[in-house]
Amino acid sequence: MILRRCISSLSGSKTGAFQLPPTIRQLLASPTTPDAPAITVSGWIKSIRRQKNVAFAVLTDGSSSQGLQAVFVGNGEGVKALTNGSAVRLTGRLVPSPGAGQDKEFLVDLGKGKAQANAGEVHVLGSCDPELYPIQKQALSTEYLRDHSHLRARTDAIAAMIRLRDSLQKNISTFFDDQGFVYTHTPILTGNDAEGAGESFRIAEMSSTHPSVGHPPHAATPAPAHEKEFFSRPAHLTVSHQLHLEALATSLSRVYTLSPCFRAERSLTGRHLAEFWMLEAEWALTTGGVNATCDFVEACLRSVVRGAPATDVDALWKGKDADGEERRRALDDAVSLQREPWVRMTYTEAVRALEDHVHQNPAAFEYAPAWGRTLQSEHEKWLAEKLVGGPVFITDYPAALKPFYMRHNDDGKTVACFDLIVPHVGELVGGSVREERAEVLEEQMRADFGPDLGSGAYQWYLDLRKYGGAPHMGFGMGFERLVGWVGGIDNVRESIPFPRWAGRMLL
Amino acid sequence: MILRRCISSLSGSKTGAFQLPPTIRQLLASPTTPDAPAITVSGWIKSIRRQKNVAFAVLTDGSSSQGLQAVFVGNGEGVKALTNGSAVRLTGRLVPSPGAGQDKEFLVDLGKGKAQANAGEVHVLGSCDPELYPIQKQALSTEYLRDHSHLRARTDAIAAMIRLRDSLQKNISTFFDDQGFVYTHTPILTGNDAEGAGESFRIAEMSSTHPSVGHPPHAATPAPAHEKEFFSRPAHLTVSHQLHLEALATSLSRVYTLSPCFRAERSLTGRHLAEFWMLEAEWALTTGGVNATCDFVEACLRSVVRGAPATDVDALWKGKDADGEERRRALDDAVSLQREPWVRMTYTEAVRALEDHVHQNPAAFEYAPAWGRTLQSEHEKWLAEKLVGGPVFITDYPAALKPFYMRHNDDGKTVACFDLIVPHVGELVGGSVREERAEVLEEQMRADFGPDLGSGAYQWYLDLRKYGGAPHMGFGMGFERLVGWVGGIDNVRESIPFPRWAGRMLL
Repeated sequence: MILRRCISSLSGSKTGAFQLPPTIRQLLASPTTPDAPAITVSGWIKSIRRQKNVAFAVLTDGSSSQGLQAVFVGNGEGVKALTNGSAVRLTGRLVPSPGAGQDKEFLVDLGKGKAQANAGEVHVLGSCDPELYPIQKQALSTEYLRDHSHLRARTDAIAAMIRLRDSLQKNISTFFDDQGFVYTHTPILTGNDAEGAGESFRIAEMSSTHPSVGHPPHAATPAPAHEKEFFSRPAHLTVSHQLHLEALATSLSRVYTLSPCFRAERSLTGRHLAEFWMLEAEWALTTGGVNATCDFVEACLRSVVRGAPATDVDALWKGKDADGEERRRALDDAVSLQREPWVRMTYTEAVRALEDHVHQNPAAFEYAPAWGRTLQSEHEKWLAEKLVGGPVFITDYPAALKPFYMRHNDDGKTVACFDLIVPHVGELVGGSVREERAEVLEEQMRADFGPDLGSGAYQWYLDLRKYGGAPHMGFGMGFERLVGWVGGIDNVRESIPFPRWAGRMLL
Repeated sequence: MILRRCISSLSGSKTGAFQLPPTIRQLLASPTTPDAPAITVSGWIKSIRRQKNVAFAVLTDGSSSQGLQAVFVGNGEGVKALTNGSAVRLTGRLVPSPGAGQDKEFLVDLGKGKAQANAGEVHVLGSCDPELYPIQKQALSTEYLRDHSHLRARTDAIAAMIRLRDSLQKNISTFFDDQGFVYTHTPILTGNDAEGAGESFRIAEMSSTHPSVGHPPHAATPAPAHEKEFFSRPAHLTVSHQLHLEALATSLSRVYTLSPCFRAERSLTGRHLAEFWMLEAEWALTTGGVNATCDFVEACLRSVVRGAPATDVDALWKGKDADGEERRRALDDAVSLQREPWVRMTYTEAVRALEDHVHQNPAAFEYAPAWGRTLQSEHEKWLAEKLVGGPVFITDYPAALKPFYMRHNDDGKTVACFDLIVPHVGELVGGSVREERAEVLEEQMRADFGPDLGSGAYQWYLDLRKYGGAPHMGFGMGFERLVGWVGGIDNVRESIPFPRWAGRMLL
């Protein structure tokens, strides 16, 4: 009884058929007829051009790189308020377009009285002062847009980049799903300090005045408030999800994540962010060594990139010079089904090729290549762009150059790993077979962390081998670099909605 | 020429048809015949039972709640090494099972010589000492497993929970995709300090000895090394992605994310984690007020929960008492297509109902309900579990109880918001129409942050309204609470692979 009395609204959705109004992308994909009925569509004005008795505007809702051309006939009062950036709701009809450049247009007939059939309407939801609006129609510099990061998604390129991220992520999900993987959430906060992958951010100690928050409703048992460390031990932001993924792979066998990672590196380059997203995968119980790992990565990338939506990719490459056009062709070529498998060479072979090149061109590189030394960016660039002319897997690096967890090859010198180098991007993926032999791993860890294995901090990692360890492999791919490769974006700061780097964090 | 000479391996995948070997889940879904050919399957031994000339083991690779029954005939030497937890590769045949409890079994015939057709094989990939293995077959306490978080995914319940997370996330992705949303990555590191949503973690200042890392290959411009703040200003871990999502929604109109959030709250409850994942969505240009927001959330939840895989949900609810069975029935009922829309009531109506209840039962609550006061957990519990008996939306709370960004109703007292309360879970979702009127928002922000709007820190948020502001709405849902609701998991620490809370962060 009380229920009936106190409940005002039992409306609610017929959820089976729930659907928000169509987006402009959906409208553009729907059929039109000259006598289409009147509908309502909302969005922001991207541009407007007024003539005596007619006005043309491009309307966008961010759902597509393509805007909706709106044609205002009769030029009523409402059209005056339509300025670049304003949010509007229009009533009109989606009809075939007689003009060039688009199949469809949205006809808003303002010459008719409101009561008449098919009368158009213009309703300004939010105005935008054209004098003050920071996103003017002319080209805006990259730096200017970084300074206005809360508004820069309103530009065509940044919006296309964000949609491209969404598409790539969906394609990744489809590929991994087909291969029997489980998507998992591994922790951001960890006691591990970087695993040698670079500087990590550390969580500050709690201030002594930090209040012990205990909301009455939670019937909370407050933790000791005198602890300076919130977690009773130092906490860092993770630089990689690999070790935690490995723990899950000893149960679920095939796991992956696309998660944020953090590096407190002060180097300012177009390839590094302090906060970035990484695709990481680990899988166990399969065989085939480093070649099988490369097979997986190549199949994944080809499938993911081939499925990227052409409209957004086109929008991102638009206006590039001849060199840009050539890069795009090379990208399409690299992932096409017809093309040969990507080239694979060992580190040893790569160094030999570099040395041969230096022999013929003594001034070729700033750093001399030699076996046992890190491959520099200039070396990788030459290998991918000049020697191979496409993506190249470089495998089996010297053990001394790589982290403790990579599987040692029988030669006693190298490990079963690879870097995938891509023209104009550099290292896109790094991966390896993981050392599954407990005794070999333990020896390597003692060498790296000391005889107490870093005060036992990594004992858990050894446990994974001790109890039913199985052959496994994995890799990590910088998601912003992938976005940059597919979209022809030269700086990772334009491959993520809100970039963070040393000295810079807006919003 | 050089290319030919230096490249050793041009193998690589035929990527169009790339496929890892089938998982046990895939095998169990494939057809069997009595004369099936010999194949190889790998996994971990979950249990083994030995008889004189035959042994039975359950093999898992974590791909399914259901294991593969392996039958060893002939009982060779290899079977002795098969202990709980060991990783093995078996050669045998997938045949129809004559036994009860499974359709198929994996027959490993060890009685035949290796060279014979269909000869079975057992290969131990990694042994596991049954005396030392921490994951013994008997029931292990929740606390014990939390202490062994690197191994606890090997238990049926935690593995099922992780797979359930994967499924729910996929269903979420499908739902939002159908509604025209774009998945976006909003930042974890932010200058915003909590937005009133609770205590935030702060990034420590860089130590003065912090090296300025500048890898030679990056041609890096090092950032000023004297800065104590890496980003030249204090950085916090985000408590919510809402404000950044709103910025993107003014371009892409429909955006969502499933991302980590952080709260440095010391209260220790079964409903709170220091690091958790939140589904957050914002969409613009649509109408309908708070009821439309509830419609969306209800449609989303019904669709996402209905699509959860029965095998994993069954595994999680297994062994519950009668009360648990009743809860599961209530869950299925709540999301079934046949059921009425979920009840909606205003905060004012909810308080009146609570007051009526107190009038009849003076000792009903610890805290007296009254208009203008926060609804306590005990109140929400009664409303959802006793009054309504199902999920209930409570709408239009007093403005003074809610954050500055919620849209003010015309009554001058309340805001257009809702909380979704679910039996045995509590608050699962919170959302609102956002205040799109620049002047109303600015007034509210001055009241909250002072006349300078927090030294201008939130000016960007006002900008979003100033330049083409549009009606918009959004919500946030704690992902671990959703997992708990669907899986009948009482403590959020068992709803995430690696839980973190005050005083506790393993690995």
